[in-house]
Amino acid sequence: MVLGSMKNQIDIPVEWGDSDPATIVFYPNFFKWFDIGTWRLFEAAGLSYDVLTSEYGLCGMPLVEATAKFSSPIRYGDTVRLTSHISVWSRKTFEVTHRAEVGGQLRARGSETRVLARQPAGPGTIEAVMPPERIVAALPVHEPPG
Amino acid sequence: MVLGSMKNQIDIPVEWGDSDPATIVFYPNFFKWFDIGTWRLFEAAGLSYDVLTSEYGLCGMPLVEATAKFSSPIRYGDTVRLTSHISVWSRKTFEVTHRAEVGGQLRARGSETRVLARQPAGPGTIEAVMPPERIVAALPVHEPPG
Amino acid sequence: MVLGSMKNQIDIPVEWGDSDPATIVFYPNFFKWFDIGTWRLFEAAGLSYDVLTSEYGLCGMPLVEATAKFSSPIRYGDTVRLTSHISVWSRKTFEVTHRAEVGGQLRARGSETRVLARQPAGPGTIEAVMPPERIVAALPVHEPPG
Amino acid sequence: MVLGSMKNQIDIPVEWGDSDPATIVFYPNFFKWFDIGTWRLFEAAGLSYDVLTSEYGLCGMPLVEATAKFSSPIRYGDTVRLTSHISVWSRKTFEVTHRAEVGGQLRARGSETRVLARQPAGPGTIEAVMPPERIVAALPVHEPPG
Repeated sequence: MVLGSMKNQIDIPVEWGDSDPATIVFYPNFFKWFDIGTWRLFEAAGLSYDVLTSEYGLCGMPLVEATAKFSSPIRYGDTVRLTSHISVWSRKTFEVTHRAEVGGQLRARGSETRVLARQPAGPGTIEAVMPPERIVAALPVHEPPG
Repeated sequence: MVLGSMKNQIDIPVEWGDSDPATIVFYPNFFKWFDIGTWRLFEAAGLSYDVLTSEYGLCGMPLVEATAKFSSPIRYGDTVRLTSHISVWSRKTFEVTHRAEVGGQLRARGSETRVLARQPAGPGTIEAVMPPERIVAALPVHEPPG
Repeated sequence: MVLGSMKNQIDIPVEWGDSDPATIVFYPNFFKWFDIGTWRLFEAAGLSYDVLTSEYGLCGMPLVEATAKFSSPIRYGDTVRLTSHISVWSRKTFEVTHRAEVGGQLRARGSETRVLARQPAGPGTIEAVMPPERIVAALPVHEPPG
Repeated sequence: MVLGSMKNQIDIPVEWGDSDPATIVFYPNFFKWFDIGTWRLFEAAGLSYDVLTSEYGLCGMPLVEATAKFSSPIRYGDTVRLTSHISVWSRKTFEVTHRAEVGGQLRARGSETRVLARQPAGPGTIEAVMPPERIVAALPVHEPPG
């Protein structure tokens, strides 16, 4: 669900295999969900992987930095509502901010700093590119209400 | 391998299934490796999961915060040398710092802030406890050479 | 979606992190999807994990055997339609059969043979139990049209 | 460790994140281990991914079929000793057989039927090729002692 043109919201069911022996979600899964949130945000703006590949010559969006703060545990059977938006565009990088709620309650927040990348000499090479104007325009920075 | 009594080092082969379509490691795997690094650090100090469970009544080490900075991509076929140490003990939380190298070159750094937890009323409940003195003593904060 | 009272159908988006360097789905993910299909089938019959735990004293459904046949590759961006049903109930085990399609085309079939298990002496012990009559009644074997 | 030129053996530590809420290994992880076992078997025969790519023009070894039988649960803290060998070479496919033990006791057996594949028209296309003679010669079928 696109909220305005700025934020995207998806619901992710927490699965049996997502939990650890303490019966709470194994924490790297939060970053899997952030990754899903980022791709869905781009798709919602018309920038699917196919479009990124064929129209922009990109191969992916490698990470520069990732962070998460965890408020309270998530368990198998919960449904995570993940809201994602672009918080920064800079010369070479951009930041996506994520918020995960269950039943209206905050469970985790996080951010990813990424680059848009291409493979200048085929698979095995990778190079950050300046974000194309049309991509920046399609995914404007979300300004929280002031 | 224990370096002094402070740091622990493990080698993690990067597998076929760890990569994404851009042929570099899918980034949540770095946090899987950090998690492995933390458990191995505790094991190296005599604090295996069995010991934590039976002697200290703990059920796990849930995350409060996690961060990573990525320097350059890692691929299938690389071997990650992960060095982990305790960087902070505080009243209720502690921080583990990780450094991932391939062939002597830095590829990623990160930290996890965790609590020691027990299940006061069985599975489904979870509660942070003050770090027991013996655990803190067994895993002293590593001071980088000044 | 429940089809009759016998089959359950779910749609699973294929994510960026599900692929391998050959840009097709890393095959263990099919078994993750089968696992999800089985839990969803039980939930659709009113047998969520909470119900299995609290009303039947069960701790899970460990595997005895699992198989899959793969017809043609699945990629990031595809949506998998997974249909699952019980194909056998026997004295101690049961079999769940799964069919994965993309765009109406078969991509994989598989089956899981499982037991219903409890932990007779707490975590760390595990024991198969005879399937309770009410569970068998709630999940009748699906007979393909003859 | 290569046993004769026929079998390959690796030790895989079971990690915290490999378990499910019933505190036993989440079963798709066995197939992750089988996949690792297959790649290591090829590497032990001098057929690393780099060699397969650059010398043979291959892009991977997609699955046709996979099976596993599980004897008894594996837990966090166990070390899996996985032994893998080629059991069949046929016109277009080959089969790898795997055996997983912990402490000398059988825990799971399984097999993978695979093809060697190339991408005739770049990423997004995939095609099975007849196994090259040199690859078949480097990985002879292991005959169990009769």
